[in-house]
Amino acid sequence: MLRLNLLRVSAVVRSPSHFSAHPIQAKQRPAMGSLSYTTSSKPSSGDKLLFRQLFEKESSTYTYLLADVSHPDKPALLIDPVDKTVERDLSLVKELGLKLIYAMNTHVHADHVTGTGLIKSKVPGVQSIISKASKSKADLLVEAGDKIYFGDLFLEVRGTPGHTLGCVTYVTGDGPNQPQPRMAFTGDALLIRGCGRTDFQGGSSHELYKSIFTLPKETLIYPAHDYKGFTVSTVGEEMLYNPRLTKDEETFKNIMENLNLPYPKMIDVAVPANMVCGLQDFSAKQVEAVSN
Amino acid sequence: MLRLNLLRVSAVVRSPSHFSAHPIQAKQRPAMGSLSYTTSSKPSSGDKLLFRQLFEKESSTYTYLLADVSHPDKPALLIDPVDKTVERDLSLVKELGLKLIYAMNTHVHADHVTGTGLIKSKVPGVQSIISKASKSKADLLVEAGDKIYFGDLFLEVRGTPGHTLGCVTYVTGDGPNQPQPRMAFTGDALLIRGCGRTDFQGGSSHELYKSIFTLPKETLIYPAHDYKGFTVSTVGEEMLYNPRLTKDEETFKNIMENLNLPYPKMIDVAVPANMVCGLQDFSAKQVEAVSN
Repeated sequence: MLRLNLLRVSAVVRSPSHFSAHPIQAKQRPAMGSLSYTTSSKPSSGDKLLFRQLFEKESSTYTYLLADVSHPDKPALLIDPVDKTVERDLSLVKELGLKLIYAMNTHVHADHVTGTGLIKSKVPGVQSIISKASKSKADLLVEAGDKIYFGDLFLEVRGTPGHTLGCVTYVTGDGPNQPQPRMAFTGDALLIRGCGRTDFQGGSSHELYKSIFTLPKETLIYPAHDYKGFTVSTVGEEMLYNPRLTKDEETFKNIMENLNLPYPKMIDVAVPANMVCGLQDFSAKQVEAVSN
Repeated sequence: MLRLNLLRVSAVVRSPSHFSAHPIQAKQRPAMGSLSYTTSSKPSSGDKLLFRQLFEKESSTYTYLLADVSHPDKPALLIDPVDKTVERDLSLVKELGLKLIYAMNTHVHADHVTGTGLIKSKVPGVQSIISKASKSKADLLVEAGDKIYFGDLFLEVRGTPGHTLGCVTYVTGDGPNQPQPRMAFTGDALLIRGCGRTDFQGGSSHELYKSIFTLPKETLIYPAHDYKGFTVSTVGEEMLYNPRLTKDEETFKNIMENLNLPYPKMIDVAVPANMVCGLQDFSAKQVEAVSN
């Protein structure tokens, strides 16, 4: 069974010590605070974050746009953009008067081609970001504990391997003038009432189970996908109702080993492209240079 | 051309006087305030609203769950539920510990069957709501200016006909302890960068153009549908970038008359069912009683 505790900013959660034998009373009526997704009645003067959730229907992928609109440049970033919706995303960035500085991925996706390469070709100056552990190419390779600043706001990188070897979760900062509740962009590590498969790309149900990070219950969960039409959850909600991660590790591993999922139809196209995420052009030129 | 102004709560906007000849400079860089979708840095103690946006993929419909989680009963309502996703919605309501009191529609939908009837059959005590102008059956028939309370929060009803005769927009309250920015659930009257068709169900491009309501620029727009993966917009954004409603009325009418849209494939099933929204069972029993 799983118990989640508050963890300090910039710590990487890989220790099995975060799990305990105390059962979760899954049907217990949860405390209000853990399940509230609130909009503030009186936003404080520190409001800075512009946030948009965007959906790509074919692969059921969520792309997230975040910007610090209190900064003169309105610096912005996109998390998990999809190649097919790059035009939509860039139009929105332009209309909102934002300056896109980062195009980042939570991991090497197997179900769609990332939009980072296309974005870089269309918006000079944008830098691609992915984890060092993904062994992919990008302008910036991040590790657990790193902070990614856009204006006065930042995302903290947490290691959450298991779906793939290099999966990370980006979490909004903890501190004054950072959004509250905090927002966790979990990629495929933690889905709403689910989690990513663990049978490809260095996946490991043991690693995934261990890597579930600890954040306050009210933290908002924004996954890379949803197939049932949910848009957001909270840590508290998943602690109570995630049908996989509320189980003990052995049961969880059994569940993951018996999903009987089909071979991902896009994997052979998507993974090679995404391994050079944001650097397709550069890579192509290198190949060209070598062959010449 | 269209100019939107602040209007007092509970007024119904049907007067052409809200439109002026001043052109919108559509490509002007907008003021920050009009385009910010912020999460508060420091939520005030008045946080009450639990809010969830839910998506039904087949008809690209958004259902909205709102609840006052500071109230002991946690009273909740669903806007535009879809029959096919009622189980999902009710599971979520249960998991969040909410008490569903209203299942409401913005209008008589032509592309899907409302979930209100099914919800009423599964959760005793829930009341269905639709506009009186829709000429449909429901437990509560509302008119522009009405306020629908759930706990200490409320939605205000605004008349926004044109897509159908009975379309209304539900807007979160204006006052202390109500969510800020305000949230407008526009149904099909105003879509993100678009609007509903006007060629069925008493639709009228003239009425739709006239009925566009006036709210502060930062008001969040939550439509009944989106087909491109957008989840939210603002009044300010639509004032600048809506490709239809930024035009003068003549151009708008021309656009609407030349959409060349196919006959809605679900209309013959959906409209009769939705005209008795929330009362299908009651209606069926009546028929049964008469035939006996």
